[in-house]
Amino acid sequence: MTYCLAMRLDEGLLFLSDTRTNAGVDNVSTYRKLHVFRPGDDRLFVLQSAGNLATTQEVLDRITRDLAAGGESLNTVNHLFEAALYLGRLSSEVARNHAATLGANANATFILGGQVGDEAPDILLVYPEGNYIRCSDDRPFLQIGETKYGKAWLDLAVRSHADMATAGKIALSSMAATALANLSVGPPYDLGIYRTGSHELQHARIAGDSPFLSRLVDVWRDHLLAAMHALPEIEPGDIALLEPESRPT
Amino acid sequence: MTYCLAMRLDEGLLFLSDTRTNAGVDNVSTYRKLHVFRPGDDRLFVLQSAGNLATTQEVLDRITRDLAAGGESLNTVNHLFEAALYLGRLSSEVARNHAATLGANANATFILGGQVGDEAPDILLVYPEGNYIRCSDDRPFLQIGETKYGKAWLDLAVRSHADMATAGKIALSSMAATALANLSVGPPYDLGIYRTGSHELQHARIAGDSPFLSRLVDVWRDHLLAAMHALPEIEPGDIALLEPESRPT
Repeated sequence: MTYCLAMRLDEGLLFLSDTRTNAGVDNVSTYRKLHVFRPGDDRLFVLQSAGNLATTQEVLDRITRDLAAGGESLNTVNHLFEAALYLGRLSSEVARNHAATLGANANATFILGGQVGDEAPDILLVYPEGNYIRCSDDRPFLQIGETKYGKAWLDLAVRSHADMATAGKIALSSMAATALANLSVGPPYDLGIYRTGSHELQHARIAGDSPFLSRLVDVWRDHLLAAMHALPEIEPGDIALLEPESRPT
Repeated sequence: MTYCLAMRLDEGLLFLSDTRTNAGVDNVSTYRKLHVFRPGDDRLFVLQSAGNLATTQEVLDRITRDLAAGGESLNTVNHLFEAALYLGRLSSEVARNHAATLGANANATFILGGQVGDEAPDILLVYPEGNYIRCSDDRPFLQIGETKYGKAWLDLAVRSHADMATAGKIALSSMAATALANLSVGPPYDLGIYRTGSHELQHARIAGDSPFLSRLVDVWRDHLLAAMHALPEIEPGDIALLEPESRPT
């Protein structure tokens, strides 16, 4: 499995991906799932991938080949949504080529983020079928892979209008919570920060044994334990006796 | 969907179930998923159910019919694991009767908890195939249905060796977090508390508009926000520059 997330913030975009891949429990490896394309000075694309690794790699190779060939490519699209449709076409084509043997196991799902020219930067989710959705204005984040364990943290970031630095810490909290709950998600973690108008990505890798991650988990644990001790008492008015069921006797 | 959980504590057992059922998004209803059988003074069984509602109801009806018929029933088993195998046989039979039209959609999964005689009380998960597992000593809780969103809370309760009262609040925290994240899980919530040796269940219903639930969510939100503001800064030593990828050019 995989966990990748992307957030759209006032200052720009934030991307975070784990690197663990597994084909069965005894074939665990480390692969990048955060990929950057900067084919021209006026455009930057970030791809995050979940699903079939072979499909993902062939899609990346085709994107690279198309850029070199000079035909339709990430360098010719005029809008981010056109890049999403282009990526979706490649992805569904590659998956279809292997569907006879793999079926839906050949599928890959992508988050595509970035900026084309002066357009507002955005993040889009590209489905295996080749279509896409944007993130919503109310919940400006996207997740792919093992999305459930860490969702509450992203809701928190959104509700509190976190700035880029805080959003980064919250994204890593969401990632750490997911990795604690699910062995198929694991470090190192690849972080990408895009500031609007820069057409450049700052990216960094955070190791699993990073002191920062330990401190982060400590802070969460301390506050969760504090919350646990502060939980309110159930008052008699809060509960009702559960009536016996009407079952035939 | 559904979310049911059960915890094995030093003092006894704790059960919590939501009540929302849905057959499609426009057929949402409220059904009990926490069921109690006390066929004799020396035994008590709690059933929690997830999956096909029709299968669940037929299983409950068959259990009741068997108790009245006087043959093999929850009143004749000598151990909790025998009750689990009996329940598993009923459940897999009912599902098989409808498999021609429904396939795996006819399946139901159960948590069975309780105490038979002087045996230690326990909780077991009964699979649609009819077999069962106990909860582990290291993580003495079980979940069925929509299990991922609320798992971190149960881990917390286990790690901190919560007593029955605290465990109840943590179970409701796990439930509230799940309901916030997933529309298919919702109130009212049915809580069952079993104290070892009592062979009786205290059970109560907590309404969605209960002041307690509001206070609970407030405490969590306050502490999560406090944790967010206390998160450590990323130091330069914690991150490494992410190298460019080796892609063909």
